[in-house]
Amino acid sequence: MALSDGHQTSAPTELPLVLLHREPNFPVRFLPLLRSRYRILDPNEESDSDPKFLALSRSVRILLCWALFPVNSQILDRYPSVECVVATSAGLDHIDLAECRRRGIRVSNNSDIFSDDVADYAVGLLIDVLRRVSYGDRFVRAGLWPVKQEFPLGLKVGGKRVGIVGLGNIGLRIGKRLEGFGCIIGYNSRKPKPEIQYPYFSNILELAQWSDILILSCSSTTETFHIVDKNVMTALGREGIIINIGRGSLIDEKELCGFLVRGEIGGAGLDVFENEPYVPRELFDLNNVVLSPHKAAITTEAIEAIPEIVMKNIDAFFSNKPLLSEVSL
Amino acid sequence: MALSDGHQTSAPTELPLVLLHREPNFPVRFLPLLRSRYRILDPNEESDSDPKFLALSRSVRILLCWALFPVNSQILDRYPSVECVVATSAGLDHIDLAECRRRGIRVSNNSDIFSDDVADYAVGLLIDVLRRVSYGDRFVRAGLWPVKQEFPLGLKVGGKRVGIVGLGNIGLRIGKRLEGFGCIIGYNSRKPKPEIQYPYFSNILELAQWSDILILSCSSTTETFHIVDKNVMTALGREGIIINIGRGSLIDEKELCGFLVRGEIGGAGLDVFENEPYVPRELFDLNNVVLSPHKAAITTEAIEAIPEIVMKNIDAFFSNKPLLSEVSL
Repeated sequence: MALSDGHQTSAPTELPLVLLHREPNFPVRFLPLLRSRYRILDPNEESDSDPKFLALSRSVRILLCWALFPVNSQILDRYPSVECVVATSAGLDHIDLAECRRRGIRVSNNSDIFSDDVADYAVGLLIDVLRRVSYGDRFVRAGLWPVKQEFPLGLKVGGKRVGIVGLGNIGLRIGKRLEGFGCIIGYNSRKPKPEIQYPYFSNILELAQWSDILILSCSSTTETFHIVDKNVMTALGREGIIINIGRGSLIDEKELCGFLVRGEIGGAGLDVFENEPYVPRELFDLNNVVLSPHKAAITTEAIEAIPEIVMKNIDAFFSNKPLLSEVSL
Repeated sequence: MALSDGHQTSAPTELPLVLLHREPNFPVRFLPLLRSRYRILDPNEESDSDPKFLALSRSVRILLCWALFPVNSQILDRYPSVECVVATSAGLDHIDLAECRRRGIRVSNNSDIFSDDVADYAVGLLIDVLRRVSYGDRFVRAGLWPVKQEFPLGLKVGGKRVGIVGLGNIGLRIGKRLEGFGCIIGYNSRKPKPEIQYPYFSNILELAQWSDILILSCSSTTETFHIVDKNVMTALGREGIIINIGRGSLIDEKELCGFLVRGEIGGAGLDVFENEPYVPRELFDLNNVVLSPHKAAITTEAIEAIPEIVMKNIDAFFSNKPLLSEVSL
């Protein structure tokens, strides 16, 4: 067989090999598109004991991690030649980054696709908690408007001091949006960002003391585990509101429930939880919380944009070019 | 009794007379403040047949209209000396403006206090409908997340074409906020506004054809009655979304319900209805609508700001100065 011209369709065996790492039966709408470009190795569809599959597993150099399926050392042991993990998600706490660093594995994520959507959702949750949008919807659907007439007043968005924890791609976009509403922005992050005009707080406790509303948009790491604890909630105060579009592990959820139930903080808008899909039952009866099934990052349009960035990262890897969205380990 | 110095407390009979026009028992938190400044004539508290009350009714020059209690020719007949109506609301469709004009009565409203809150709420409803915030909250509270796992994808806010009907105080503020989300704004109003960069559509049908989302922020008048009819909904199309923070009468609600139930438009966020507090029951089962008990304008902070602007208008009237927020009749 003659070497194929780059413009012609290659035979399947000549396509670059990519491991598709996904939860069993997790739908991947773009699989036909991926299969047209790569030879997809899918453990869901092949037998673990098939010698051909085992040989490919040992030689595959790139792991495409779909959604939030964990990548840990046990998984990486199965694919010892992997040099690069391409994640479809923005957050990476399902991927053992320390282990990747130790093994010299590069990681790319998809943050730019999702950042706008996450920021939009954070603002939506903030308006919802302050102005009681979901609560009002519940009130109307329950037929209570003609009965009770009066609905409790909400709070103004403008003029509120909003403390953003983690001023990365997402946090910056949240700030930009909230400026349009007349909010006053402050932030906490590992280091102050000299190019940013917002006041910087070197620790979250000081930020919470200053803020009316705290928005969590930082990564989930060992340093940020339970970064919002009892002390931060106390500093935020009885009127304070917490919005979490980061990860559930950022908040001591048990403490948060206690503070909310006892009325020791003002409210919360939560897209993420410590033990998803399980949400603490005691929150179900509260009208000052908005509960959301981890969907800040996901829109139809963002999902449709995934294959392009995924394929650009894969192609960059195989062409020995810099990854499009490489994560600094 | 000597003439009192302006800095000393006047005797009650010397305070300027103001008629408080409110729904029976409607709470007016600031009544003590008002009473400290004016002699308040309150039909709720006095007998219609009391000759003293009747005499004051015939001489009172200013009517303070609280919330949305109607002012029509029948009411104005009772108070034949009224020269000025001070409304606490932003919208004025409860006040017969034509009749006021005919009688030479000036009218002031409170639009500037509420405009930011209404604009915030419009954006909140828009994010909610696109991103399914209230629906997600219902989904979690119903305990469905662990059962169904998957929640339907929402739609991206950025890049959407938003047609604003009525680019006044509120519409402009909505546009400004949505620019921060990357929306593309167009508008319809009586006349194009040369200082505005957004594309102008001389009729709502063309605007609806262009728009992904239509936001109603115009006044309710005879010209705007059912401005969103069957033709506009058809032009908006199956994916189109309507946000109404104006008045219920702007939409042919019966048609809207039909379009929503049959899936002939994409969704709606409705703060106002034709027959409040009654909301069409067929909307209660739809997940692509957000229903709200007419509260876009009302926040704790806005309510607290009412007395200042009300008193400034009353004082301006008695000092023969221009009203602070006079409505052009």
